[in-house]
Amino acid sequence: MEKEISDPTLAVSGQRGPVSHERRIQIIESASEHFRKNGYKKTSVADLAKAIGVSSAYVYRFFESKQAIGEAICGLALGKIIAAMHEVANSDMSASNRLRKLYTTLLDKGLEIFFNERKLHEITIEAIEGRWCATTQYHETKYEVVTKILKDGRASGEFERKTPLDEVVIAIVETLYPFSHPILLQQSEPNVLHQRAVAVSNLVLRSLAP
Amino acid sequence: MEKEISDPTLAVSGQRGPVSHERRIQIIESASEHFRKNGYKKTSVADLAKAIGVSSAYVYRFFESKQAIGEAICGLALGKIIAAMHEVANSDMSASNRLRKLYTTLLDKGLEIFFNERKLHEITIEAIEGRWCATTQYHETKYEVVTKILKDGRASGEFERKTPLDEVVIAIVETLYPFSHPILLQQSEPNVLHQRAVAVSNLVLRSLAP
Repeated sequence: MEKEISDPTLAVSGQRGPVSHERRIQIIESASEHFRKNGYKKTSVADLAKAIGVSSAYVYRFFESKQAIGEAICGLALGKIIAAMHEVANSDMSASNRLRKLYTTLLDKGLEIFFNERKLHEITIEAIEGRWCATTQYHETKYEVVTKILKDGRASGEFERKTPLDEVVIAIVETLYPFSHPILLQQSEPNVLHQRAVAVSNLVLRSLAP
Repeated sequence: MEKEISDPTLAVSGQRGPVSHERRIQIIESASEHFRKNGYKKTSVADLAKAIGVSSAYVYRFFESKQAIGEAICGLALGKIIAAMHEVANSDMSASNRLRKLYTTLLDKGLEIFFNERKLHEITIEAIEGRWCATTQYHETKYEVVTKILKDGRASGEFERKTPLDEVVIAIVETLYPFSHPILLQQSEPNVLHQRAVAVSNLVLRSLAP
């Protein structure tokens, strides 16, 4: 009882909480798959509900609009990239290798998640144009993992310690953009992007030499 | 006569060549101004012709469609950025200072040309979405000016000479994107972009230290 009172979300949803959460994730994943195959723009909530075998009313119990589903898909996709960044930062490789790996991980995950057979997903384009994908946590994670890797590398003696840490973090986060922003990823072939990611991480590591 | 035969463009347009060129530039500049104020999407060639005081037929003598005018506006805008990059590369500053200046020049020119009171011009968005702006020469210029500055800095002893030149050029060109691509420029405030450009050029210069 006390827990329910201190957590209004749980108090409201009661026993249905966890079950609803599971169903919500299922709807998001089915919707994501459906939009991937059939496009986002021309699919209505009714089409989507039919395709995943539930009623429109059921979908509306979880999401107030198609865009709300889009936002959830976007959040789930960015969540996967965020998790992959943390995995790199927390791995037991040297700081230099973790930094290298951060470039290729962002690139590989981005190509996997935002694209479909080398074409940007329609939902990615809609999210960028309509600016309805919440990217704050994603951006914060970039700063967080770069800061962690830099601190570790400074502590281990791999990286120089003279330049203010904040300035270096800001600069490195900027150099990640060409390998993480969908619009930039779409302008080049994956193998060219990989070569460039290696060239940039080499340049960054030379700048960090003690 | 011989000149006309060896240059088919001149042979066809004859005496009208240079005059047509001037009128073409005038139409492009008026159109650019008109689209800037009234939007690109909803303006027809007829609206445009009326606004700049000529007949639609006259405009069609120079451009086969509204998009062809858009492409010309785009070419003229990128031409200004290309000229600014060459000016930086050919100035008499040290290689280090020219490299710094390249970041801020791309940023300032981009904000000036692609934006209108901090909002992306509609024609910029259309050009990116429709991919009808020819950016090849613009991209080649980035490689060209970075190569020149690096070679000069290596010759003067400002920059290290161990890393293959091509690899360094590729990496530096990538680090220019956050300060030159309209979609990335629109995501942050100009003063924040300036701070980041300084942080990135400092990082790049540390990586180039002999």
